[in-house]
Amino acid sequence: MSCVAEPRVLVAGGSGYTGALAARLVDRHPAFTLHGVTSRSDAGRPLSELYPHHRVDAVLRDLDLDRDGDVDAAIVAYPHGAAAPVVAALRERGVRVVDLSADFRLRDRGEYERWYGPHGAPWLFGEGVYGLPELYRAQVADADLVANPGCYPTATLLALAPLAASGTVRDVVIDAKSGVSGAGRTPSAKTHFVTMTENVVPYGVGAHRHMPEIDQELALLGAPVTTTFTPHLMPLDQGELVSCYVTTSEPYDEDRVTELYAGWARSHPFVEIVDAPPGVRDVRDTNVCAICARADARTGKVFVFAAIDNLWKGAASQAVQNLNLMFGLPETTGIEPR
Amino acid sequence: MSCVAEPRVLVAGGSGYTGALAARLVDRHPAFTLHGVTSRSDAGRPLSELYPHHRVDAVLRDLDLDRDGDVDAAIVAYPHGAAAPVVAALRERGVRVVDLSADFRLRDRGEYERWYGPHGAPWLFGEGVYGLPELYRAQVADADLVANPGCYPTATLLALAPLAASGTVRDVVIDAKSGVSGAGRTPSAKTHFVTMTENVVPYGVGAHRHMPEIDQELALLGAPVTTTFTPHLMPLDQGELVSCYVTTSEPYDEDRVTELYAGWARSHPFVEIVDAPPGVRDVRDTNVCAICARADARTGKVFVFAAIDNLWKGAASQAVQNLNLMFGLPETTGIEPR
Amino acid sequence: MSCVAEPRVLVAGGSGYTGALAARLVDRHPAFTLHGVTSRSDAGRPLSELYPHHRVDAVLRDLDLDRDGDVDAAIVAYPHGAAAPVVAALRERGVRVVDLSADFRLRDRGEYERWYGPHGAPWLFGEGVYGLPELYRAQVADADLVANPGCYPTATLLALAPLAASGTVRDVVIDAKSGVSGAGRTPSAKTHFVTMTENVVPYGVGAHRHMPEIDQELALLGAPVTTTFTPHLMPLDQGELVSCYVTTSEPYDEDRVTELYAGWARSHPFVEIVDAPPGVRDVRDTNVCAICARADARTGKVFVFAAIDNLWKGAASQAVQNLNLMFGLPETTGIEPR
Amino acid sequence: MSCVAEPRVLVAGGSGYTGALAARLVDRHPAFTLHGVTSRSDAGRPLSELYPHHRVDAVLRDLDLDRDGDVDAAIVAYPHGAAAPVVAALRERGVRVVDLSADFRLRDRGEYERWYGPHGAPWLFGEGVYGLPELYRAQVADADLVANPGCYPTATLLALAPLAASGTVRDVVIDAKSGVSGAGRTPSAKTHFVTMTENVVPYGVGAHRHMPEIDQELALLGAPVTTTFTPHLMPLDQGELVSCYVTTSEPYDEDRVTELYAGWARSHPFVEIVDAPPGVRDVRDTNVCAICARADARTGKVFVFAAIDNLWKGAASQAVQNLNLMFGLPETTGIEPR
Repeated sequence: MSCVAEPRVLVAGGSGYTGALAARLVDRHPAFTLHGVTSRSDAGRPLSELYPHHRVDAVLRDLDLDRDGDVDAAIVAYPHGAAAPVVAALRERGVRVVDLSADFRLRDRGEYERWYGPHGAPWLFGEGVYGLPELYRAQVADADLVANPGCYPTATLLALAPLAASGTVRDVVIDAKSGVSGAGRTPSAKTHFVTMTENVVPYGVGAHRHMPEIDQELALLGAPVTTTFTPHLMPLDQGELVSCYVTTSEPYDEDRVTELYAGWARSHPFVEIVDAPPGVRDVRDTNVCAICARADARTGKVFVFAAIDNLWKGAASQAVQNLNLMFGLPETTGIEPR
Repeated sequence: MSCVAEPRVLVAGGSGYTGALAARLVDRHPAFTLHGVTSRSDAGRPLSELYPHHRVDAVLRDLDLDRDGDVDAAIVAYPHGAAAPVVAALRERGVRVVDLSADFRLRDRGEYERWYGPHGAPWLFGEGVYGLPELYRAQVADADLVANPGCYPTATLLALAPLAASGTVRDVVIDAKSGVSGAGRTPSAKTHFVTMTENVVPYGVGAHRHMPEIDQELALLGAPVTTTFTPHLMPLDQGELVSCYVTTSEPYDEDRVTELYAGWARSHPFVEIVDAPPGVRDVRDTNVCAICARADARTGKVFVFAAIDNLWKGAASQAVQNLNLMFGLPETTGIEPR
Repeated sequence: MSCVAEPRVLVAGGSGYTGALAARLVDRHPAFTLHGVTSRSDAGRPLSELYPHHRVDAVLRDLDLDRDGDVDAAIVAYPHGAAAPVVAALRERGVRVVDLSADFRLRDRGEYERWYGPHGAPWLFGEGVYGLPELYRAQVADADLVANPGCYPTATLLALAPLAASGTVRDVVIDAKSGVSGAGRTPSAKTHFVTMTENVVPYGVGAHRHMPEIDQELALLGAPVTTTFTPHLMPLDQGELVSCYVTTSEPYDEDRVTELYAGWARSHPFVEIVDAPPGVRDVRDTNVCAICARADARTGKVFVFAAIDNLWKGAASQAVQNLNLMFGLPETTGIEPR
Repeated sequence: MSCVAEPRVLVAGGSGYTGALAARLVDRHPAFTLHGVTSRSDAGRPLSELYPHHRVDAVLRDLDLDRDGDVDAAIVAYPHGAAAPVVAALRERGVRVVDLSADFRLRDRGEYERWYGPHGAPWLFGEGVYGLPELYRAQVADADLVANPGCYPTATLLALAPLAASGTVRDVVIDAKSGVSGAGRTPSAKTHFVTMTENVVPYGVGAHRHMPEIDQELALLGAPVTTTFTPHLMPLDQGELVSCYVTTSEPYDEDRVTELYAGWARSHPFVEIVDAPPGVRDVRDTNVCAICARADARTGKVFVFAAIDNLWKGAASQAVQNLNLMFGLPETTGIEPR
């Protein structure tokens, strides 16, 4: 735990959706000061030109380690692969980092390289704490490098954590649905309005980069399974729903499921256990993960539905949640549901 | 097979989405004459007032069996339960019927009553041919009463037919996504624009009426399983995607799956086997079912994605496909992809 | 100006979109206490059941003046006509009221009755201060009854205020576009998702209730014109854009327009003058009105585009802005852009 | 009028939205043969890969005048500026051309160059017949080069034609709303799904390329005015609405307006005069222009609302309507409302 009067936080890579949102959340945060926002592609432009609705008064600029290297913390929102060297440079200067990329999430380097190519700072590989506070709260508090989870792993792991920890998970089918912001800001045929309106499309079938991350963490929790995971793009901006169909080694009835999830959620301020399957709008613009778990008598399976905002709990506000822990602040500071 | 010069077709129940579309398709059909369109709730209103884009020149009117009973065929688009008596009355007058409700789809009366309540014409229960032409083409051609399948069963059964027939299906998880038109025309909080825009919501979890229909037909095909089936409402009008995750008793590789589906599709003019998982927009306003099947080496499962337009192949144009068969016409007449 | 330690605020009529949002804003407000939320149609239901995303922990209940009559202030969100008696009853008990209905907006009773029918508390007619703080800040601060403006008048009057005050306005064409939430929560064919998705529809052509309100206030500002005003429903939830085409009695060039609007905006914390015509997303979930004014050399007209969130600045957050003024608080308390 | 057995039609530039749709319409046309579809950017790709829902069985290829130059007609869907040389080359070979670009729409070359830059085939400038059949039916029938109108001019001129021809138009404000497909297929920040969902944005304010086209044709009709024209992008795919507010030199009452429009529409199979202001969904996927004209007693203005599908009547199906006329076919062949 640190003891800095008013920690100064840099956002490196602020022109993408998640970096820009991180900048806004830090800017409004009662205990952090936004030191600056950098961008490789849009240096020189006011952030408000790209994102008027964020109302952040900052001009994007190039990253300059001489100037930026003495901040207390940084949120790095670079693409996979490009993030590691920047993270490394910041760490060398003693900056505590929450990294939004996949570069420090995996523990198996071969697996990393298979999905993302060569690592940009191999000496740091594996040094990050996996920044899902609901699983690693204590470690995050002590960490200097936090690997913020992917959006799908965030929702999926929260959906499955209590079951996985019970050691009864035998098979999991995860059907995931995400809004288009999950595909990033770069314009393409896939993200064109005309392509996506009135549409829904599976993608990354059998080969999505979040698979190894999900399986790694499920195994650590106690469920060493190869999950079936298929994401779908949906015609909306922010929002993500994972529908999980779990085969268990022991039968679960409604009471057992309810008790399991309710007990677990008690220690997690951003987990909401709900009676009816949640819609993604219920959690939009919040750091909340809404979860509905059901024992299905007909099939004997356990169904779990979890909804998050992919840009918030799936990225930027979870980064702030991690920063809060790292600096000894109440976990909800600056990201209370509103 | 009938031999009627220009069969006259009645649409009974034309104020809902599927009935109105059926009226349009019959009206433009080169071999059928639209005899009239009835409605209980909107009698007296021009159909074009409710559905300007259908451009059908007909005034909705009350059903009058004296006047309407001498048509050659009828498409009945009444709610479940209310359909059976109307179907019975039309059948008594010798009218051949395609019924869009669930009243004649199930073979087990106890099961019917469990999901829908008492049957409205018990003496006819079980008399309908299940109108999925890709499964029952010959029977439909000879039938006087065709039970048009539900939208989810249509997509699901087409997705799974070849696999089920192979006898290797052990477990199936079906995650289904439907546009809001699937919830019908009656305004409600659930179908309000403000509720659904930027949203996606699971519904009917563990208890959707299409479950027994799916399981009944899968068993008849050769896959006696209790499927896991969960539908979701999505922020779009027409379109339905079923994502099926199948555990098999034998291993499938890509070649075997491809061959199986390609061979089967050859006899079905409205089944399109596609390489990439289809988006629902690919089939909008058509009678096509687009299917992508994959052997997933990672999990050993077979993944099948099938997209239809829930109002077309999931209801109204499939009814016309059935009528075509019943009157000895080429299956595609009047509903060719355009 | 009042001097109450922590004013207790009642929200009467909290099951509609604007009342529910008002409840949320009061609930999170640092200087107000939410006394309770009433509803005629949904008494007994938790507000979170109707609006999970608002995260307000309150159960809707019947209005009970004995219990509710001793609050310091109330936001009344009843339908037009039904509001007046409730407002009157609260005023009798000394409660300061911001009324979201049209019942106290108009100054001409004949005009009121022509658009809304008989008034429900005629003895109070005309007693309300028109609650557009940018026009009536001082009067609002002293008022006990504030008539919160309609959403279209809010955007239109802010768009035209500086021009109207200059006395040069000769003719105004206002083409307005609103999200579907503006049509209210009651489900209907018009607000069904299937009706509005991929659609845009003019409505209230030549006869919209906001017309007399707009013309009344423009005349008071110095522009006694009969405006052309046509609203359109658009396929989105929250957001409103007014596009105003103004014929003036004197020529305006770009500099004169820019100076006029910039000068005026300086005293109004929620007015943002922007260079490019604003999109409605730029102001979503805020109390901001973004305005772009242009002198059009080609036609000689002045174009003004103003965007608000119809539920926020167009209703609920503007009500809080008024309450802030009434209780001597900084105008932006609890509704700062975030 | 030509007399060709089954005219062969080339579509040059088939990878954009309008060219691809033109290919589909020609492909299904009962009296035309689709000779081929060319593309500069996507040669070698099947059209069905880019547009699965069009179901056209053609591979995009480079334009080769030796092979393609002997067709009977061509629809050219190139960008402005690039179209003229291709049109010229085809005309040299005797091919009759409908050009979807702006290159042959304007009559004043200076005006053309001001908006589009140097013309690509100046010797042909002004040789095109303006292809709005409702205004120039006879000339189109005899033409070898038809300049298909822009989408906004199509809707606007149809909305205003009867009034303009009456010689009573003094001032016109046109507020236009278009779906995102109007912005073309090229991905950009403006057409990203995340930018446009839940948004509406004015653009081209004071300087849109369709202005001179509208004013040129209105003057020829009898209304020599400088129109106020402002387009807005809306969160939908296909559809365009123009809301026209007309100041006239003589008073119009409801009867006079109704009679004027009804009389005029009688000779135009694709013009529908409707009682209530049309929504854009009413005409989606059709060549129909739905028009509602109203005398507004309150302001003394005439209001006209016209809805088209910007890709159909605003581009591709209007091109086919022109081809029908050029080849002596009934105007509605292959593009009947369905």
